[in-house]
Amino acid sequence: MAIVTLLSDFGLRDHFVASMKGVMLGLNPELTFVDISHEIPPQDVFSASFTLGQTWHLYPPGTVHLAVVDPGVGGPRKALAASAGGHFFVAPDNGILSHVFSAAEDSAAFEITAEHYYRKPVSATFQGRDIFAPIAAWISRGIPLPQLGPALPDPVKLPLPAIKRVQDALIQGVVLAVDHFGNLVTNLRPEDVPRAFRIMAGKQEITRRCATYGEGAAGEFFIVAGSTGYLEIAVRNGSAAERLNMKPGFPIGVILQ
Amino acid sequence: MAIVTLLSDFGLRDHFVASMKGVMLGLNPELTFVDISHEIPPQDVFSASFTLGQTWHLYPPGTVHLAVVDPGVGGPRKALAASAGGHFFVAPDNGILSHVFSAAEDSAAFEITAEHYYRKPVSATFQGRDIFAPIAAWISRGIPLPQLGPALPDPVKLPLPAIKRVQDALIQGVVLAVDHFGNLVTNLRPEDVPRAFRIMAGKQEITRRCATYGEGAAGEFFIVAGSTGYLEIAVRNGSAAERLNMKPGFPIGVILQ
Amino acid sequence: MAIVTLLSDFGLRDHFVASMKGVMLGLNPELTFVDISHEIPPQDVFSASFTLGQTWHLYPPGTVHLAVVDPGVGGPRKALAASAGGHFFVAPDNGILSHVFSAAEDSAAFEITAEHYYRKPVSATFQGRDIFAPIAAWISRGIPLPQLGPALPDPVKLPLPAIKRVQDALIQGVVLAVDHFGNLVTNLRPEDVPRAFRIMAGKQEITRRCATYGEGAAGEFFIVAGSTGYLEIAVRNGSAAERLNMKPGFPIGVILQ
Repeated sequence: MAIVTLLSDFGLRDHFVASMKGVMLGLNPELTFVDISHEIPPQDVFSASFTLGQTWHLYPPGTVHLAVVDPGVGGPRKALAASAGGHFFVAPDNGILSHVFSAAEDSAAFEITAEHYYRKPVSATFQGRDIFAPIAAWISRGIPLPQLGPALPDPVKLPLPAIKRVQDALIQGVVLAVDHFGNLVTNLRPEDVPRAFRIMAGKQEITRRCATYGEGAAGEFFIVAGSTGYLEIAVRNGSAAERLNMKPGFPIGVILQ
Repeated sequence: MAIVTLLSDFGLRDHFVASMKGVMLGLNPELTFVDISHEIPPQDVFSASFTLGQTWHLYPPGTVHLAVVDPGVGGPRKALAASAGGHFFVAPDNGILSHVFSAAEDSAAFEITAEHYYRKPVSATFQGRDIFAPIAAWISRGIPLPQLGPALPDPVKLPLPAIKRVQDALIQGVVLAVDHFGNLVTNLRPEDVPRAFRIMAGKQEITRRCATYGEGAAGEFFIVAGSTGYLEIAVRNGSAAERLNMKPGFPIGVILQ
Repeated sequence: MAIVTLLSDFGLRDHFVASMKGVMLGLNPELTFVDISHEIPPQDVFSASFTLGQTWHLYPPGTVHLAVVDPGVGGPRKALAASAGGHFFVAPDNGILSHVFSAAEDSAAFEITAEHYYRKPVSATFQGRDIFAPIAAWISRGIPLPQLGPALPDPVKLPLPAIKRVQDALIQGVVLAVDHFGNLVTNLRPEDVPRAFRIMAGKQEITRRCATYGEGAAGEFFIVAGSTGYLEIAVRNGSAAERLNMKPGFPIGVILQ
């Protein structure tokens, strides 16, 4: 049994996700589907790449990851089939695999051009159904990637925001994501903040480090080593994002003491 | 392995969907479930029928489609088992299969009366769990539809809104649905608008036709041939529905030039 | 094929749920997943317990139910593996299994301490991925619960709100839950209200009993025997919760006539 994960900005109300699954089951009825998320903010390729980057490697090798956040659908952007770390990926070539490519050392990418695998006619507005889903299903059945089209040596990669060391004791980071609980996931690693610190997040100064979400005092902001390797800014029993009015892209200043 | 799709207005927060799945797995543990949508607006049978109509035919023949938007639950409305195009359907007889019946040429419907297949006791408020789910599971195990009850020659069919040709060059259409991105799906087909046009949508005049969502200028409204065969009204990087303050049922005027 | 259900407050936007599923598929690729709900209000252990209690028993024996609403993650709360009614449960020991334990007569609980089954390193903030998911997968593969750790004779059980008989004809109940449609699920059973009654719900007096949601007059409040054995307060074609401005925990007064 082959596993296909799905990631998109299609939401769960319309037929879009089910249509992709129907097409895939028509080609390989033995598939196991797992939805990573379909609530990526519309057209937010970075958020999709970040979300995929946090979870793909937890799946067994051979898993096919289908990722469709595709603002350029129907336009000149390429369609991509890739392998990395023993996994397979099918996606538009718009940077949605940036975190995958950044984490894996052995990636290979191919431009999908083998139209005989497409669902016909190919819509100009929903190629998730007509190109990406059938290609994912064919890969799950063992079609080697080179049969899908020519090698693509330089797939699109988004710049992944790095921390800036302004001075020895002064670091500038950024909010990468806000999770469901309102925790602010930063691009700082625990080793970037090895000692006492002051963090400026919006107008809030933070000096406390906790090991768990439940450790802070009520209403107190703190940093905590999150589950995906980044420091997070959190507040006990509340949403740090709402309380600080911050969202992805907002700067974080760190002064090491 | 048999496939069962599920469509409802139950939402994803409560136990309702999981309860239907549990009942089905108890009768057939080898099922593959696919959720089409559980975010149909409460009691909106037309929206459910439209959503199902856009995706059921993409599944392999033999798939069982379980559709429960059921404002008349516990009342005199009949319970329905149907076949169409090699697929099976289980639903209240309230019009939720209208788009299926409209698209398939070989449909047959039966009134579910074989109470020995029900889960007992049958609740008057959640027959998705007690009647529709077990019937779907039994169908997935191969029970022929005629064993479920008598033929139902005239299942409920909602009127599907047709375009009106007011004059040779003047057409009146309607918004059928608003998708997750705010695109307005109309009941106009591309062949209904074969040449230059002016479309009146609310107070907005639209004269541009694009091939893809990404083609329009920022903020410009345009029409585009959507993936399910209908013309859509869209605006680049925005929600046409919000910008025009329109929703399903709103009229669209077309003047062919 | 083994069945694992999942219940959490993780939402569907982030990678959390998919990360738990990936870990489980890595240990047992033959799993069938069913999501009960991931939209439990953040940290609302009672709501999670109530939701699980309404559906677990509908699944076939042998099902593994993974329930992670875990405000105390990383702290001293124990991790729990339990059996009840032929089903298995994996959860933090915080009361999330209260309704299961209350309904089953044959439950047994064990504290999870067998670290060799964990995913390493164990995060202090996402033990759903690192402890609960792998334990659920190992149970699905047949590991007996006693191998996971010592018996836990007294797992945490939340007080389940009982009705109070203030006088012979005067009962005080409470709202247990509000469902997707806005129906108020109370802790009253139909047999608690065996004859004519007046119910005070907020400022609203209710005297009507209906058999189905569709039976009431437009705008009229009524009680109805819900599908899980509790009386519900409903209003036709509307949300009783919104109209009465009530939510879980609000009192309900019943005067039997």
